[in-house]
Amino acid sequence: VKNINLCLIEEKLDQFAKDRDWEQFHSIKNLSMALSVESSELMEIFQWMTEAQSNQIKEDEKKLNQVKEELADIFLYLVRISSKLGVNLELEALSKIELNNFKYPASLVKGSAKKYDEY
Amino acid sequence: VKNINLCLIEEKLDQFAKDRDWEQFHSIKNLSMALSVESSELMEIFQWMTEAQSNQIKEDEKKLNQVKEELADIFLYLVRISSKLGVNLELEALSKIELNNFKYPASLVKGSAKKYDEY
Amino acid sequence: VKNINLCLIEEKLDQFAKDRDWEQFHSIKNLSMALSVESSELMEIFQWMTEAQSNQIKEDEKKLNQVKEELADIFLYLVRISSKLGVNLELEALSKIELNNFKYPASLVKGSAKKYDEY
Amino acid sequence: VKNINLCLIEEKLDQFAKDRDWEQFHSIKNLSMALSVESSELMEIFQWMTEAQSNQIKEDEKKLNQVKEELADIFLYLVRISSKLGVNLELEALSKIELNNFKYPASLVKGSAKKYDEY
Repeated sequence: VKNINLCLIEEKLDQFAKDRDWEQFHSIKNLSMALSVESSELMEIFQWMTEAQSNQIKEDEKKLNQVKEELADIFLYLVRISSKLGVNLELEALSKIELNNFKYPASLVKGSAKKYDEY
Repeated sequence: VKNINLCLIEEKLDQFAKDRDWEQFHSIKNLSMALSVESSELMEIFQWMTEAQSNQIKEDEKKLNQVKEELADIFLYLVRISSKLGVNLELEALSKIELNNFKYPASLVKGSAKKYDEY
Repeated sequence: VKNINLCLIEEKLDQFAKDRDWEQFHSIKNLSMALSVESSELMEIFQWMTEAQSNQIKEDEKKLNQVKEELADIFLYLVRISSKLGVNLELEALSKIELNNFKYPASLVKGSAKKYDEY
Repeated sequence: VKNINLCLIEEKLDQFAKDRDWEQFHSIKNLSMALSVESSELMEIFQWMTEAQSNQIKEDEKKLNQVKEELADIFLYLVRISSKLGVNLELEALSKIELNNFKYPASLVKGSAKKYDEY
């Protein structure tokens, strides 16, 4: 079982910002920009690869390490924003899955890129 | 204590894709694009707000609900990619905080936007 | 009068790709990713600045040069995609302005951030 | 010969913002966010397509029209930012092509995705 202790991460991020007096830069607007920039940096790693090559990234240790760092950056900003807004990430994630189950009934959308795209 | 049960979310996402035969669309390349698109949708909510207004988003229930949905979407794609690559998100997040503590010593960067920016 | 000779830029981009045998990487999908990545790099320059600071960027020659390079990158990918799809950028831009004039009547939306945001 | 009359577009954008008293929202920071959001919306159209499908977009009139609108939005924000900063887009684009010719010599990088990626 993989349980993530979110409180620990939230506290570390909070302390990190306080120690540097960086709270002033951490408006929700700015944090949402930073999250978008980090997501773009993740995507950049794959931009000239074929889809098949992207699925083989685990075989390239150097690139996989870059990917891990970007995933961590994205996660940290996501936790930071959620923490500041009092959002329960797990609860919202499970609710969204339920919503998607309702919006995209398997019987209707199965296997079709076209349908997938239009919903 | 907020513990996130990642396994549960991973399994639900896996089942969701299998039930719809959507595994074929979920290359790492495509998932990284989807993550970037969702991050951009979060940012879009704040693009014309001042920083102060973005910090008051909790007072606007309708907008806060949009924010929660976008945060959930980002988290789901983040978990999906990490799951496919066998990446331990918590471990990587804690490592990244350690690295940042080393890269940005509080004594050096404290309170300066300029320094913050240049590191 | 500033007229941009698009044909010249299109031809140079075409020759550049042909000389390197990079046409194979230039699918519309990949080019749209590259355009998004470059736009994110432009935004990254401003992410921790206040809005007022961003408006003073011209006074920082080094940062302004970075901005110019990112604007050029964005423009080049935009021209490349438009060229491949046979899209007339000027025509589309003028049509979009007309459409926006229709969608956002000055009498209705004037000066209101709230309205601006909701349209 | 396709010449774009940039002055005309710049003037129309300027008038559009003035008529609505929207100058106040058009800081360089906010405009760079809007440009990034529009680029992401373009990319979203292609996110679940294969590269081959993306190259066939011209055959789907409805999707092509969406693409044209997004290209126009990107171009308008690009012109707006350049205009506000006094940047000559054509000059910067031509300079960047020269720089790229220097950075990526054809003899060195020809036909190699790997090299393409590493430069």
